[in-house]
Amino acid sequence: MTRTRSSSEIRDASRREIVRALVVQGTATRTELAHTTGLSAATVSNLVAELREAGFIADAGTDSAGTGRPTTVLRIDGEGGSFLGIDLAETYVRAVVFDAAVTEIGAANVEIDEEWVSVDSVADALLRAVDLALERGGRAPSDILGVGLGLPGLLSTDRAGTVATPGWAAHVGRLEDRVRPRLPGPLVTANPLQAVGHSEIWFGAARGRSSAVVVNLGTGVGAGIIVEGRVLRGATHTAGEWGHTVLELDGRACRCGRRGCVEAYVGVPGIRHTLSEVDPDHALLQLHQREFIEGLRDAVGDPPVAETLARTARYLGIALSDIVAVLNPEVMTLTGWTAWALGDALLPAARIALAERAPELTAARLDLGVSPVQVNSVATGMAVLAFENHLDSSALARRARSRPGPRVDPPGPSPTPSSAPQPVAG
Amino acid sequence: MTRTRSSSEIRDASRREIVRALVVQGTATRTELAHTTGLSAATVSNLVAELREAGFIADAGTDSAGTGRPTTVLRIDGEGGSFLGIDLAETYVRAVVFDAAVTEIGAANVEIDEEWVSVDSVADALLRAVDLALERGGRAPSDILGVGLGLPGLLSTDRAGTVATPGWAAHVGRLEDRVRPRLPGPLVTANPLQAVGHSEIWFGAARGRSSAVVVNLGTGVGAGIIVEGRVLRGATHTAGEWGHTVLELDGRACRCGRRGCVEAYVGVPGIRHTLSEVDPDHALLQLHQREFIEGLRDAVGDPPVAETLARTARYLGIALSDIVAVLNPEVMTLTGWTAWALGDALLPAARIALAERAPELTAARLDLGVSPVQVNSVATGMAVLAFENHLDSSALARRARSRPGPRVDPPGPSPTPSSAPQPVAG
Ligand SMILES: [Zn+2]
Ligand SMILES: [Zn+2]
Repeated sequence: MTRTRSSSEIRDASRREIVRALVVQGTATRTELAHTTGLSAATVSNLVAELREAGFIADAGTDSAGTGRPTTVLRIDGEGGSFLGIDLAETYVRAVVFDAAVTEIGAANVEIDEEWVSVDSVADALLRAVDLALERGGRAPSDILGVGLGLPGLLSTDRAGTVATPGWAAHVGRLEDRVRPRLPGPLVTANPLQAVGHSEIWFGAARGRSSAVVVNLGTGVGAGIIVEGRVLRGATHTAGEWGHTVLELDGRACRCGRRGCVEAYVGVPGIRHTLSEVDPDHALLQLHQREFIEGLRDAVGDPPVAETLARTARYLGIALSDIVAVLNPEVMTLTGWTAWALGDALLPAARIALAERAPELTAARLDLGVSPVQVNSVATGMAVLAFENHLDSSALARRARSRPGPRVDPPGPSPTPSSAPQPVAG
Repeated sequence: MTRTRSSSEIRDASRREIVRALVVQGTATRTELAHTTGLSAATVSNLVAELREAGFIADAGTDSAGTGRPTTVLRIDGEGGSFLGIDLAETYVRAVVFDAAVTEIGAANVEIDEEWVSVDSVADALLRAVDLALERGGRAPSDILGVGLGLPGLLSTDRAGTVATPGWAAHVGRLEDRVRPRLPGPLVTANPLQAVGHSEIWFGAARGRSSAVVVNLGTGVGAGIIVEGRVLRGATHTAGEWGHTVLELDGRACRCGRRGCVEAYVGVPGIRHTLSEVDPDHALLQLHQREFIEGLRDAVGDPPVAETLARTARYLGIALSDIVAVLNPEVMTLTGWTAWALGDALLPAARIALAERAPELTAARLDLGVSPVQVNSVATGMAVLAFENHLDSSALARRARSRPGPRVDPPGPSPTPSSAPQPVAG
């Protein structure tokens, strides 16, 4: 209820800032960390000491470039622990193991029957992906300090569920209950939109920005919203359902059961719909999902495809302008496989439509582009969320009690099977 | 750039919390303040001491209800200073003087020629309203510690300007420059949407809530957005321009020059448009603005009016669902004179349309109603913003240096002409 953050919340936030800064910058001195994070030198020293104790920060040499005595250069100790990020989508589950430097050390994809035959089959697929990823990363379950699971959002699943698979909302809850005790670490969940928001804060265009929006374009579409450097979850954890805001009153039927949603125009089925309006017999209409999108990308010179992309870009620009008008963010990025495949083709015309509709300064000063975080954006976001949770005081304290001794002790045989990182397969 | 708040920002936020809690609760002990704000007892004691020194907190007796020794009950000292809130709208300017308990002690309205003949004439009207409000409140210019000016937002003016009065954005800047040196205190500006957001945090349904949206319904429409207890301003200070998000692709012409905006359906001209579709010869179409809205309110039994209200409620519910889908707030309130006049008539059907479109839990758990802050919502919001600014460390420090001595000294003749509060006229 109250709005004032407690001192332990502030300390938790500061600890996250330091880890994030070190992960992103690679190495830094305490002075550089104070500069990057805006924290006082004393706070940085305190938190660095605590994080060294916990095994997440190690020395990376000394910096003698200045005039005074050499200062210690710090780095994240990747061996400090491992985290699992899981991206559960409608057709596949992808599990990725990261070390504490958020470097990917093992990944696995397992396909899911699109019909969602049973919660058990999805839970089995998920746990199989986890086992495979651990094996490929050379990590034991006991090495995992936290697990982040990106679950399809309430609306993009629950409502879509009323079309394809009724009762999906209940499934998600049951799925969570089913897998939680069998996962190798404390579980944190979020929807994929919030997950890509976390990725973008750590590694993307939202880094160091106060406000940003990450727009996910795939079969479904939605937005990860970042305000004051934090991902907005919403009162019932469903903020960002921009895909089901209205673009055209009483317009096209959307797979959620409503009419005129943004998703029905710029989601993959929406783009197919547009091509079918332009040319009902077009050969690309035989293809599905990713193949369809890649087909468009490879045929931009084809007039019906060009017309489809022009209309899609206009729909997209107008729909983006609604987010810009309401939130007026500093930066906006597009992510998801439609964005990665078609971003370059869509952005010029989308920018024009957006500039025509959005309040003028908002569009003129908006930094808009395709996200630099690709491939694993959901899994990465969930892993860093699990990492952030682990960094909270209570979790760190629990860990300190359970560790055999501080990291500075003479190393005995490593308690973790520290196999060398392996090439990623997925 | 950095996201971590400095200790002085945290102290400023805590000081605001204490003042806000005391203003709203009337009286409180230090223990109660710690409970309400979530601050530690030590922090509360420190800040209370500082605020007593600055003249904003006074004793209101002792509370001996507990088992221990009697504790001091605190209250805001209304005589600690005065603040001016100014609501500059397209057709009038309203200035309101508040004491430090945020009690209205004088107000004045001055009409503005709707043609905006010149910046000078608007500046003159504004300063005349200020002089009148001061006189009615029995305050001298030197009593005013801060002035908050609500200026029409960038888009709802700049673009509307392209229809009625070109160059309006430049006018706002020039107006601000013109009046700033002639106002009786440091000036802070915001747009009216952000102003109603501040009102709602202090006195309305957003009190103590983490996230809220205040939807303003008048000639123009827009939303004040509250996230983590703070009003969202946006990268270029125009967050909340929901009125110009799209409701119907290529739909009705909006006065901003675009097509299909929410405002073209639920702003006053939009509601007139709907009535003219239902009954092109309806007598109420002769009326303008407020008279038109009050005419609708008084004729809800008239079938064309009932049909107009039904359609307007549906448009409103769908447009509100877009905000709910994206932001998923805890609470949403309607404000502005359309809401105050027609809220009861519109809300039942609007709720149904909203529930049909919004992600289900978001709508089911949303607290939606007409704002309890009425009449002076913009002026009140701007006055509390000026108060909050004044409470920041730097401003308080400047004041401490300029004050003759601490408040606890034996009182000499009051330096302010402390006339008794007068009945409000305006
Ligand atoms: Zn939909
Ligand atoms: Zn408009």
